[in-house]
Amino acid sequence: MQLLIDRIIQDGKNLGNGILKVDGFINHQVDPALMDQAGREFSRLFKDIGATKILTAEISGIAPAVATGLHMNLPVVYARKTKPITMPDQVLLTLAPSHTKGRTVELIVSPEYLAGGERVLIIDDFLASAATILGLVRLAEAAGAIVVGIGALIEKVFEGGREKLTALNIPIHSLAAIQSMEGKEIRF
Amino acid sequence: MQLLIDRIIQDGKNLGNGILKVDGFINHQVDPALMDQAGREFSRLFKDIGATKILTAEISGIAPAVATGLHMNLPVVYARKTKPITMPDQVLLTLAPSHTKGRTVELIVSPEYLAGGERVLIIDDFLASAATILGLVRLAEAAGAIVVGIGALIEKVFEGGREKLTALNIPIHSLAAIQSMEGKEIRF
Repeated sequence: MQLLIDRIIQDGKNLGNGILKVDGFINHQVDPALMDQAGREFSRLFKDIGATKILTAEISGIAPAVATGLHMNLPVVYARKTKPITMPDQVLLTLAPSHTKGRTVELIVSPEYLAGGERVLIIDDFLASAATILGLVRLAEAAGAIVVGIGALIEKVFEGGREKLTALNIPIHSLAAIQSMEGKEIRF
Repeated sequence: MQLLIDRIIQDGKNLGNGILKVDGFINHQVDPALMDQAGREFSRLFKDIGATKILTAEISGIAPAVATGLHMNLPVVYARKTKPITMPDQVLLTLAPSHTKGRTVELIVSPEYLAGGERVLIIDDFLASAATILGLVRLAEAAGAIVVGIGALIEKVFEGGREKLTALNIPIHSLAAIQSMEGKEIRF
């Protein structure tokens, strides 16, 4: 999506060690119009996969996932990283290593909102090492649901996450694919 | 907003001790169309306050705040509860007691995205004791910004948060005001 690529070129920052700062429009400050356009684009890309639910992970996946849900007319479930008191005792839980946090995080979904037979579209802000997305895939499978598509705003191609997802044999789309981040460069 | 009140009646659960479970459409599973309607309604209610930025707190404030930002054509900043590595060393930080979490949480905003002179509209999922919203007010004031309006999807009137905000002398709107939650009842 050229709009997103242009925005990364304009406002994104390569902080080194593969860390891309997009806090000005995705990860701390959010540009709602950009999210809406991204949601529209995901809706176009995934219109034929028969999804019944969108799954994402808090925190930064929520904005693009809800925008996509609006355009596809689908409910969105965001996996929690801590179990709130409103959740039942019995939950679906998996562990995912977080590179940007430098530790393992829990991803928790209530079985109330992810049922067997659902066709799940996973939407997240980043596809990098795919650790979070693989965690969401495990949660969906534990619920007896089928993952039918994966979408990310930004893909860090050089982290190789896409290869770990090929075995799923489903459509995977990113709206901006970064090939390399040598020095201060961001190369698409 | 009748649509939200009806949805709380239909899918909300009074878990006792003033805890309202709305995990089916706000706090874990999100109904994007409902958020869009809420955003449209906040946009109508706050159209005359001259806001330049929307401020919310992660996690559950993000969906209604981004929906409102889309309708008002405003950027949204969500206060983080942990400082990500992409944030500068010097940040705005305040502490807010969280009743539902039973502990104090940090609310952190980067001064990159909340500047002096901005006119801030605070949007959150709940107005209950107002602890989180008062934290957001302190962050805005620390940045030299002015808070010009406060909106919440659901107000728990019986927790008295609104009284703590009256000194601000700004418009405060909730889209569903719950008067009491005795027994299993939810009374609007």
